[in-house]
Amino acid sequence: MTSVQVFGSPASTEVARVLACLFEKEVEFQLIRTDTYRGKHRKPDYLKLQPSGESLTYEDGKKTLVDSRAICLHVAETFAEKGNTELLGRGTFERASMEQWLRTESQSFDPPSSRLVFYLAFAQTEGIERDEEEVQKSKKELEKVLDIYERRLNDTNYLAGDQFTLADLSHLPNTYSLMTMVPECAAMFKERPNVMKWWEAISCRPKWARVVELQKAAPALA
Amino acid sequence: MTSVQVFGSPASTEVARVLACLFEKEVEFQLIRTDTYRGKHRKPDYLKLQPSGESLTYEDGKKTLVDSRAICLHVAETFAEKGNTELLGRGTFERASMEQWLRTESQSFDPPSSRLVFYLAFAQTEGIERDEEEVQKSKKELEKVLDIYERRLNDTNYLAGDQFTLADLSHLPNTYSLMTMVPECAAMFKERPNVMKWWEAISCRPKWARVVELQKAAPALA
Repeated sequence: MTSVQVFGSPASTEVARVLACLFEKEVEFQLIRTDTYRGKHRKPDYLKLQPSGESLTYEDGKKTLVDSRAICLHVAETFAEKGNTELLGRGTFERASMEQWLRTESQSFDPPSSRLVFYLAFAQTEGIERDEEEVQKSKKELEKVLDIYERRLNDTNYLAGDQFTLADLSHLPNTYSLMTMVPECAAMFKERPNVMKWWEAISCRPKWARVVELQKAAPALA
Repeated sequence: MTSVQVFGSPASTEVARVLACLFEKEVEFQLIRTDTYRGKHRKPDYLKLQPSGESLTYEDGKKTLVDSRAICLHVAETFAEKGNTELLGRGTFERASMEQWLRTESQSFDPPSSRLVFYLAFAQTEGIERDEEEVQKSKKELEKVLDIYERRLNDTNYLAGDQFTLADLSHLPNTYSLMTMVPECAAMFKERPNVMKWWEAISCRPKWARVVELQKAAPALA
């Protein structure tokens, strides 16, 4: 009997990352959430919460954590024998590789992709003006990191090696938003055959499909 | 700014009834829920909670209520001017009719349909043996009440009159489960043309579709 509790809404990128990890690990957990359902009209003020992430808290009786990537690492270590046992990479070398690519995701992929999700997916549908300078800058940054991925994925099926690890998993929430809601960014992925093959492999995982289902049912503002 | 809070999971029939009402009324509310996600294997012990209903609490700063039908009546009265303004019926006569059919749902439709949902939808998929005597008894009771509906719906489009009211809404959760998960019960509805026409009209309402979406994403045990 575990006592893992996650506080937050699946609509948040950070929470979605943690849910993907918990589903992969087949860990029993409770998701405690407060979803706000507006009447007829959505209020755009929730956008202030995006894309820096909604509140997220993880508790398992021993640890309380709030950073989504730290939570994923902690879950993969704590429940080493459960579910997908290769999320940290197989062996020391692959683990180091996983950690490097997870940092790349966090430092180089996440900032531009989060801004693009904000301006081109959420802000757009709410009629908030896009900051064209920010968008162009973010696109260039995203193209740059995707070029690195394209070269890397020429050698390996996944970022850390030939197994799906947390480094790949961590890309799921933002990439899913861009692929499904922002055609001009989806095109950036589609133009890069190795990146696209990788995206198809990681996004069709049944555990990720469960997160997508939760996101669809959650109100946009969470 | 309202402060309506609902505590419970959409997987519960009782909660689903209240959500359908709140969506119809376009009332802003918070849904506070704890969903439990098991690892690989579902534990059948959650079935003990079905079909008597999961815990449900409604709070709006003035009232705290736990009965789903009482909550629906209270919401329709408190937010008389919001969203669908005809849920209580138009005028005194239709209101009395609505209350009568709501009682019929609660006293005659709900008991057999809840037992059938339990034995033929949930227990079945979890490999729990069905109590054949209970099933047969419930089927007869359900047929009996559906015969009454069939005659009533020959005269009116909806149970209380020619408008969709809480009397109809209250049938949505159990009927949806029977229609989508229990072919032998779905057949009972399909055999009765007036009942079937009524079911098609009430189940295609967009507000109910939102509840179904929430139910799909909620874990079965909730």
